[in-house]
Amino acid sequence: MANDIAIPEDSVGIVSPLCARFDTPLTLKSGAVLPGFELMYETYGELNATRSNAVLVCPALSGHHHAAGIHADAPKNTGWWDNLIGPGKPLDTRRFFVIAVNNLGGCHGSTGPMSINPDTGKPWGADFPVVTVEDWVAAQALLADRLGIDCWAAIIGGSLGGMQAMSWSIHHPSRVRNALVIASAPKLTAQNIAFNEVARQAIITDPDFHGGHFYEHNTLPRRGLRLARMLGHITYQSDDLMAEKFGRRLREGGRKFSFEVEFEVESYLRYQGDKFAGSFDANTYLLATRALDYFDPAHDAGGDLAAAFAPATADFLLVSFSTDWRFAPSRSREIVDALMRNGRNVSYAEIESSAGHDSFLLDDPHYHAVLRAYFDNITV
Amino acid sequence: MANDIAIPEDSVGIVSPLCARFDTPLTLKSGAVLPGFELMYETYGELNATRSNAVLVCPALSGHHHAAGIHADAPKNTGWWDNLIGPGKPLDTRRFFVIAVNNLGGCHGSTGPMSINPDTGKPWGADFPVVTVEDWVAAQALLADRLGIDCWAAIIGGSLGGMQAMSWSIHHPSRVRNALVIASAPKLTAQNIAFNEVARQAIITDPDFHGGHFYEHNTLPRRGLRLARMLGHITYQSDDLMAEKFGRRLREGGRKFSFEVEFEVESYLRYQGDKFAGSFDANTYLLATRALDYFDPAHDAGGDLAAAFAPATADFLLVSFSTDWRFAPSRSREIVDALMRNGRNVSYAEIESSAGHDSFLLDDPHYHAVLRAYFDNITV
Repeated sequence: MANDIAIPEDSVGIVSPLCARFDTPLTLKSGAVLPGFELMYETYGELNATRSNAVLVCPALSGHHHAAGIHADAPKNTGWWDNLIGPGKPLDTRRFFVIAVNNLGGCHGSTGPMSINPDTGKPWGADFPVVTVEDWVAAQALLADRLGIDCWAAIIGGSLGGMQAMSWSIHHPSRVRNALVIASAPKLTAQNIAFNEVARQAIITDPDFHGGHFYEHNTLPRRGLRLARMLGHITYQSDDLMAEKFGRRLREGGRKFSFEVEFEVESYLRYQGDKFAGSFDANTYLLATRALDYFDPAHDAGGDLAAAFAPATADFLLVSFSTDWRFAPSRSREIVDALMRNGRNVSYAEIESSAGHDSFLLDDPHYHAVLRAYFDNITV
Repeated sequence: MANDIAIPEDSVGIVSPLCARFDTPLTLKSGAVLPGFELMYETYGELNATRSNAVLVCPALSGHHHAAGIHADAPKNTGWWDNLIGPGKPLDTRRFFVIAVNNLGGCHGSTGPMSINPDTGKPWGADFPVVTVEDWVAAQALLADRLGIDCWAAIIGGSLGGMQAMSWSIHHPSRVRNALVIASAPKLTAQNIAFNEVARQAIITDPDFHGGHFYEHNTLPRRGLRLARMLGHITYQSDDLMAEKFGRRLREGGRKFSFEVEFEVESYLRYQGDKFAGSFDANTYLLATRALDYFDPAHDAGGDLAAAFAPATADFLLVSFSTDWRFAPSRSREIVDALMRNGRNVSYAEIESSAGHDSFLLDDPHYHAVLRAYFDNITV
């Protein structure tokens, strides 16, 4: 089957997910203890002899370990950051050894709510402990140990992924040479938390959620997940982009004076919602939004973000997008300020883009030129 | 009971709702025909001998006819725009005769989904026809006829209410001397429609919605309405105000590493959602959001808002609020531009306010001073 696939020259090609099993108990920030866990990951490129060229890619809310290339059995399922990672691409796999990971609590193979709880022999479901960005970083650090990577050349992430890059720089300063924090924020605002809360309530109040144990009922809280994703999509896009993409265009047939799909934007949202509801785990969605809510390094440093970053020694690249109203440029500038007050080397690019928060996933030429230049300057 | 109530001097005092019954069929914009209908309304102040001092107050999404004063049997239930309307208040009932109305399709006594469909003897429910801003104005015009009001001294409304004021000025130019359009827009953006669509889908996919015929099932789609209202509240408030009111404050007990209420903003949203879900009709919510989606006077004039306003002869006051991201100041300026191109008298005030879209309901001193000055200049 794989023989039939035309693979572009700048693709990492066919990749296979890997699984690392950890049998030592992991104590989470909440105090809960995971008896053991597995992490799914993929790698692209080759680790060099001095082990100095490793780059960690941290996933965002719905991201996972399949960040680049294709799987032999699903040739259309290209990695979520494939436009960034590959031979000759900004994150050039001819120079770098790239690792992308599916986090704890995820729904793509790493230990999470769909995994079997060894205490009960049934899926964890809602009993899976609440995980934080710091817990994810702790698990990623164990994976780095396993792979013999003492120090990352760079850690990169967008949105929630950027929070993981920041957390690494604070908690493992000697293990990160460069942190690339894209379209992120030092903590959520009340409005951000409010959107997360509506999404969570949509899931939790769906009668098919069954208190998070829907697996046993052979059902899925599709309605809730669908609403959560529809709402998410509004916040990922800019008002401008939605105006550009959909405006007030009506679908064929014009006004029906009904509550059926009439405007193009309604059709788009329903499609996105339905697709997600059939493929993503509701408990993982709850966990990931809560990890977002809780992330607040300044909180643990008396409310002072500069004090929170005091341990960091990495060099930083911050990138924001002009129309991102979820994590606006002003949020990235807060991080830049805090890092500058610590005398860190910080580059900051504010990219003009109409695409809102989603810009970090797109291949805007200016954005990618900034990333390429930054990676090119990293010695390996 | 009413004797025990301390009524402030600048209150219109105890008021009683009135009901006007219309037995002539009303053809709606959709082509559907309502065989007859009732409108609930309240009046404050006295109609003068020349009938030249009448002011119509048009409700917003969840507004209704009880705009000022109190009801004898519910002394705590003050009208929704009581800070504006009363003796000595900006809309001074010593000079003006004020009428506030509950629109067609509403859930406060006017004919709507909860009313009995004469064809079936059961509540209309989802069979109630889709109504538009233009239909509401047509019904309000019949009410004006009934009350002998040929020409309104002014028509005022905020948000969806402002759309009704605009529609009056276009469709009944000789019957409006002044149109006060507050925190409104000439049409929704794709993002506005998208938020409405998520709210509607929350309601429609609630299993207790029963295709809009939940009355017969002795239930309410509380989950859906609750989500719709939670989401609404995020868009009514500014990011700044939410930061000011709630920030990232945790409720007593701090982080619980759970999905229970932890942040103050979660508590606020759930409270608002629950309150609304028990008191508002789900079908009315659907109808009102669709009326918002459809409002687009320029659409009927080849896409040219100035052409749409060509028939208007009223003087206008437009008011917007700096942090209103639902109907931002730029939306009001579109209306101002279109009116100026028609040579209309237009006053425009952009009020600095941290309260977002909800500002139009609050008694910001600058805002109320603008309204007071405008009303004071209207001759009666």
